[in-house]
Amino acid sequence: MSLTNKNNTELTELDFHLSEVAHIGHAAIYVTDMKRSLWFFTDVVGLYVTKETEDRVYLRAWQDWDHHTLILIQSDQSGLDHFGWRVNSEKALLVYEDKLKKQNIDYEWIEAGTEAGQGDAIKFRSPSGIPIELYWEMEKCVADETTISKYPSHPMKYTGRGAAPRRFDHVNVMVNDVVKEQNWWTDFLGINHRYYTQNKEDIRMGSWLSKTNIAHELALMRNSNQNGAHLHHVAYFLDTPDDLIRALNLMAENDIKIEWGPGKHGTSGAQFLYAFEPSGNRVELWTGGMLIFAPDWQPIEWNAKKGQLGLDMWGSTPPESYLTYGTKIK
Amino acid sequence: MSLTNKNNTELTELDFHLSEVAHIGHAAIYVTDMKRSLWFFTDVVGLYVTKETEDRVYLRAWQDWDHHTLILIQSDQSGLDHFGWRVNSEKALLVYEDKLKKQNIDYEWIEAGTEAGQGDAIKFRSPSGIPIELYWEMEKCVADETTISKYPSHPMKYTGRGAAPRRFDHVNVMVNDVVKEQNWWTDFLGINHRYYTQNKEDIRMGSWLSKTNIAHELALMRNSNQNGAHLHHVAYFLDTPDDLIRALNLMAENDIKIEWGPGKHGTSGAQFLYAFEPSGNRVELWTGGMLIFAPDWQPIEWNAKKGQLGLDMWGSTPPESYLTYGTKIK
Amino acid sequence: MSLTNKNNTELTELDFHLSEVAHIGHAAIYVTDMKRSLWFFTDVVGLYVTKETEDRVYLRAWQDWDHHTLILIQSDQSGLDHFGWRVNSEKALLVYEDKLKKQNIDYEWIEAGTEAGQGDAIKFRSPSGIPIELYWEMEKCVADETTISKYPSHPMKYTGRGAAPRRFDHVNVMVNDVVKEQNWWTDFLGINHRYYTQNKEDIRMGSWLSKTNIAHELALMRNSNQNGAHLHHVAYFLDTPDDLIRALNLMAENDIKIEWGPGKHGTSGAQFLYAFEPSGNRVELWTGGMLIFAPDWQPIEWNAKKGQLGLDMWGSTPPESYLTYGTKIK
Amino acid sequence: MSLTNKNNTELTELDFHLSEVAHIGHAAIYVTDMKRSLWFFTDVVGLYVTKETEDRVYLRAWQDWDHHTLILIQSDQSGLDHFGWRVNSEKALLVYEDKLKKQNIDYEWIEAGTEAGQGDAIKFRSPSGIPIELYWEMEKCVADETTISKYPSHPMKYTGRGAAPRRFDHVNVMVNDVVKEQNWWTDFLGINHRYYTQNKEDIRMGSWLSKTNIAHELALMRNSNQNGAHLHHVAYFLDTPDDLIRALNLMAENDIKIEWGPGKHGTSGAQFLYAFEPSGNRVELWTGGMLIFAPDWQPIEWNAKKGQLGLDMWGSTPPESYLTYGTKIK
Repeated sequence: MSLTNKNNTELTELDFHLSEVAHIGHAAIYVTDMKRSLWFFTDVVGLYVTKETEDRVYLRAWQDWDHHTLILIQSDQSGLDHFGWRVNSEKALLVYEDKLKKQNIDYEWIEAGTEAGQGDAIKFRSPSGIPIELYWEMEKCVADETTISKYPSHPMKYTGRGAAPRRFDHVNVMVNDVVKEQNWWTDFLGINHRYYTQNKEDIRMGSWLSKTNIAHELALMRNSNQNGAHLHHVAYFLDTPDDLIRALNLMAENDIKIEWGPGKHGTSGAQFLYAFEPSGNRVELWTGGMLIFAPDWQPIEWNAKKGQLGLDMWGSTPPESYLTYGTKIK
Repeated sequence: MSLTNKNNTELTELDFHLSEVAHIGHAAIYVTDMKRSLWFFTDVVGLYVTKETEDRVYLRAWQDWDHHTLILIQSDQSGLDHFGWRVNSEKALLVYEDKLKKQNIDYEWIEAGTEAGQGDAIKFRSPSGIPIELYWEMEKCVADETTISKYPSHPMKYTGRGAAPRRFDHVNVMVNDVVKEQNWWTDFLGINHRYYTQNKEDIRMGSWLSKTNIAHELALMRNSNQNGAHLHHVAYFLDTPDDLIRALNLMAENDIKIEWGPGKHGTSGAQFLYAFEPSGNRVELWTGGMLIFAPDWQPIEWNAKKGQLGLDMWGSTPPESYLTYGTKIK
Repeated sequence: MSLTNKNNTELTELDFHLSEVAHIGHAAIYVTDMKRSLWFFTDVVGLYVTKETEDRVYLRAWQDWDHHTLILIQSDQSGLDHFGWRVNSEKALLVYEDKLKKQNIDYEWIEAGTEAGQGDAIKFRSPSGIPIELYWEMEKCVADETTISKYPSHPMKYTGRGAAPRRFDHVNVMVNDVVKEQNWWTDFLGINHRYYTQNKEDIRMGSWLSKTNIAHELALMRNSNQNGAHLHHVAYFLDTPDDLIRALNLMAENDIKIEWGPGKHGTSGAQFLYAFEPSGNRVELWTGGMLIFAPDWQPIEWNAKKGQLGLDMWGSTPPESYLTYGTKIK
Repeated sequence: MSLTNKNNTELTELDFHLSEVAHIGHAAIYVTDMKRSLWFFTDVVGLYVTKETEDRVYLRAWQDWDHHTLILIQSDQSGLDHFGWRVNSEKALLVYEDKLKKQNIDYEWIEAGTEAGQGDAIKFRSPSGIPIELYWEMEKCVADETTISKYPSHPMKYTGRGAAPRRFDHVNVMVNDVVKEQNWWTDFLGINHRYYTQNKEDIRMGSWLSKTNIAHELALMRNSNQNGAHLHHVAYFLDTPDDLIRALNLMAENDIKIEWGPGKHGTSGAQFLYAFEPSGNRVELWTGGMLIFAPDWQPIEWNAKKGQLGLDMWGSTPPESYLTYGTKIK
């Protein structure tokens, strides 16, 4: 079954020009210990449960307007199920179906409601195998009587629980060939290239991309092991560096392993921490940094001499695990 | 003279669909005491001079990538000269010329270089009389030997001087009829409506708009005096609430009148201070708040019961001057 | 019954020289709505319950080392029961008993355990009628299995709940005659005078005192109504201005009336907020400011011209209630 | 020449009981590159010059009330000249002279004015050879017309230059035998023991001491090289973690080597950075952490299992240099 069949919509040339990916919407990840992972994401990170099903929990940050920005799926192996990206119109889904067909990329329609809150979605993989779902319809999150805020700008009450990130921010995947993958995301999906790092042999070590004004919604980092795409991390945005310190304190008190940080990425200017949630997926909490407004933005190069400062402008070096460890992409 | 004549470019229907305003770029304001105003914007606020001419000084924040984001113009009366908005292509200027003609809106071409760093621009006024320049070309700011940073993401060294805002953020104008003005900005220029306030008589008190993901690039507030459009303020973005406190401290020590703040706008969630620069124009420094990603964002209403919380969610009320004082629009 | 009788301790001249008040330890206040007040102090402010009895709840901040720093007592009228100040030795209690006798000040011994965790205490009133208890012994707070921290410097786990103040800080009382009251605290109890404000008629408007290095442990402010001593507020210390913003956000979301703030006291340099707990007692949360180390510190005068800046160095003025409203001292 | 001779003051038993060290006042250090070191301490750290002589520069932080808290002395080798500790009365100097004599500790009188702003001082060394000056008189710093603040609580205008620490905080020395040294400071000088770390062999790795309520004014760390006492670092206090980030940014931009940090000492709870000033002395900037009020404080033990968390509660480990590198004590 496909959406196209439902509506018999005709696509004009203009539709092709106007159809775009709008922004990243959510990540769906596998966890091996749902109970502990859920505790981490709610009590330590401070997300809120929108919905629970037999094997899934849908979560959002306090100012995420959408039904969910993270899905935890019980599994026997941690890793990535898919990333959801919202398109800018219903028709855009059909446009992308057409483009996928033309490029002979396998895809499938995911029927509305299969993922709670989400309308029909089209699912496919990037050249490196990153599972992507494009969707148009997404329910808004709804506060109940006890969580509703008097502020219309608050989708729910700010409670300050846990690290209390404001919103979902970005995702990061380790791939074998960054250049190839980045080109595809930019050319096929229109996600702009923002900055990149090159090593001494002039091999691309990382590329950061965004469709919106935030510094990046998707990061692609070279997998040192060259054993295929792996989920590197999902990231939520904190309001301030003090919130980052608060997050570090909460993780430290709760025996969560802090892999790296606090530090400050030179590339984006954002302060960061990386930690492992109880099922082994890496999570980043970050804050600050730049927005990008120029419609003709030229990607910033961080060459071999500068690259380390791109990772941490204060001079620390990432632990080995940061460059090699990722969780499975199914 | 007009750009159209220079190039004889033909415009297709697609050009009309794809041409857009990209983002607000700068404000040009009049100051009566250039020396003191310049001291304020450089030493207290912490902007940097890009260029000085006989009667103008071009300024930018440390991470503004463009040649300038603020122009001070010596005059016998403080106020607004114009706002510059960048479009998303050179052709978009011609598209807007065509639209202006069709709507019988007076306009003129401002030749490249008339404003330092800027290419050809088209100048016209909104219904309320707000002077607007649309431009495509803008030189990048260039650091010299003493101000260049080793970080490619820093257009110049971060020195921490003054309040040290990261970037230009938004502008605010008081107008007689907010609804009419807002509709025009949204319909004619495509600037999205983000949130608005209504008073007890259900009159629109304010509307906030942006083309980008930031909460607003342009605010329109009802002029209580109903004596026409006036510049309310220009705003720069600080990285953190602590930077706001630092800014308050610096203003207090330097006898700069803090009109209102610190407070937190309920509408955007941003923390703010308002102060008057020595020539009497109001300036806002603010930090934090929300970004807006939804392509189908519905403007948030703050009705009479909520409106005051929209102005300050912590409960303070703006001083009378905040609702009545603005500087001249020439 | 008196301690003196128990031990028949002889006091030497040296005992008189070495006996001192060490620091303020806690406040015991009356609340009319225990349930709501307790919710406020635990969920919004973020204190922890050490012990509950029929009509009392003992509370502490996460890094308060003592058994409690605040006692809530159910009553039909909100206000102050007493302030507890710790002395620097057991003998100091006897020294103060002797001094009280010599000055014909009424006092009574409060037997160990009457106040949970506290040893024998001697209770009396200042000239303005402020109830004071001096004590030497105080149990340490004890974390249980679920709240114990792996950090020996954390008396309990840092959980980040509510505004999460680090520790009890100071108290403030409105009195009719500030000079007289201040002199007594300095002369009789050895609490150093740190800074003071004078009005246009050169009447003392406020005096701030401390025995320790913090800017003040006790504030005395002139009661504009001249109707006797009233509790103005009790204050807890937050780590950072960002924590203050977090506190403001939590209070705003939870419909707690913020009376004044955020602002910055010029006198101490500390950032503040004032709010009313549900039973009507005023509470301050504050952060930052100076420590005082000089053994020969001269009190800083804020005269009529400067006084307002002493209250808020950023220029706001306190609401009328701040200068007139206090809760009852029984 | 000695003070004793000048005044023929008789000392009573009470004088011995009441005479105390009040607080640490300043550090005098050697620098090999005065120009660059001065640039670092003024432009990057943000201290202010009180006085310059041929080979010395006297510096203070913006809210240091004393004439100076740091002296840079031009030399051919970087390191420590002495630490100055203020006593609580003029007589206390004579009391300590008497005690030094009784303990056969060499000392000398340093005449008033030898160190600018300072009265007569008595100089001697700790068992490990740390040079100490005790003094009573110290001029206050004086702002001039351009630096005077309208706030009586500001010894000079807050300008926000550089990292802008509020005040001098503490010093740290590596010694061969921490236990022996700590006992002497506590027993002879009355500086309280606050917390300490033990290694797996139960050898004392570090001890932290203070006379005032701040967590420590003096740290003693075991010299892994066992080659005698070396200056480890001098530390200034920043108001907030955001100020620390600002400091890190300024150091990074100015090519100052950040040795370690940002991190958070578990022992004190303070956030830190360590960097080397251009002449090679280590400097710490820190913020936050606990105050200690209990007159009967028991030193907190961090045993081998906990010790690393005492150094950084977020889990990072200090670089090798941190445990081995110090500058010379003359």
